[in-house]
Amino acid sequence: MASSGFFDSPCACCKFLKRKCPPECIFAPYFPPQDPYKFINVHKIFGSSNVSKLLNELPPHQRSDAVKSMAYEAAARVRDPVHGCVAEICSLQRQVQLLQKELEAANARLRNYETLNNYPAYSLPWNG
Amino acid sequence: MASSGFFDSPCACCKFLKRKCPPECIFAPYFPPQDPYKFINVHKIFGSSNVSKLLNELPPHQRSDAVKSMAYEAAARVRDPVHGCVAEICSLQRQVQLLQKELEAANARLRNYETLNNYPAYSLPWNG
Repeated sequence: MASSGFFDSPCACCKFLKRKCPPECIFAPYFPPQDPYKFINVHKIFGSSNVSKLLNELPPHQRSDAVKSMAYEAAARVRDPVHGCVAEICSLQRQVQLLQKELEAANARLRNYETLNNYPAYSLPWNG
Repeated sequence: MASSGFFDSPCACCKFLKRKCPPECIFAPYFPPQDPYKFINVHKIFGSSNVSKLLNELPPHQRSDAVKSMAYEAAARVRDPVHGCVAEICSLQRQVQLLQKELEAANARLRNYETLNNYPAYSLPWNG
């Protein structure tokens, strides 16, 4: 049993689901027993069966990233069951829009300064 | 049967799961039969049982937003099974950092212009 590598105890998934952790457990490399909430959140939001299916459909070198992103989404959904991590996307989109407007305004002011500095004094509009 | 309001046909969930759509079906208001992929994605990623649990834990006025955000996350995970909508969060975070840097640079140039414009000509450093 136990391929989690933590004192040969079963992985967080098998521990939570009270089952034997098989040598080739798909969860063991990504859900160590010392971080039970990573699994509990992912199980609550996606369901361990869906996570297992998704991991099995991916090549091994992509599974760690997939678990990281699912753990991130699951933690966000546990904190905010209505919006999940979509709240963060909306907030970042608003921040991008605000920064783009501020940058446009700053660039417009810079263009004004640059236009004034490139005018010879005698040709300034208020010098006739 | 059918509270989906679409020719009294069962909602997308009950249609997909080949079951009778009960009058108080929790899915019916949010998963109309004419948009089957909204349910198929959400079912594939979260599992209809998890979605039903989550909706039942929310007051009715928050359920529509919860379904929207879950449908968004599910569609993103179907497109990109490794990163899901976390890819969008990372991309937006990079965009925010880039815009903040550009804005800082523009503001620094503006401060330079403003400092120069506030100096009386005789006190400019290069005028001794």
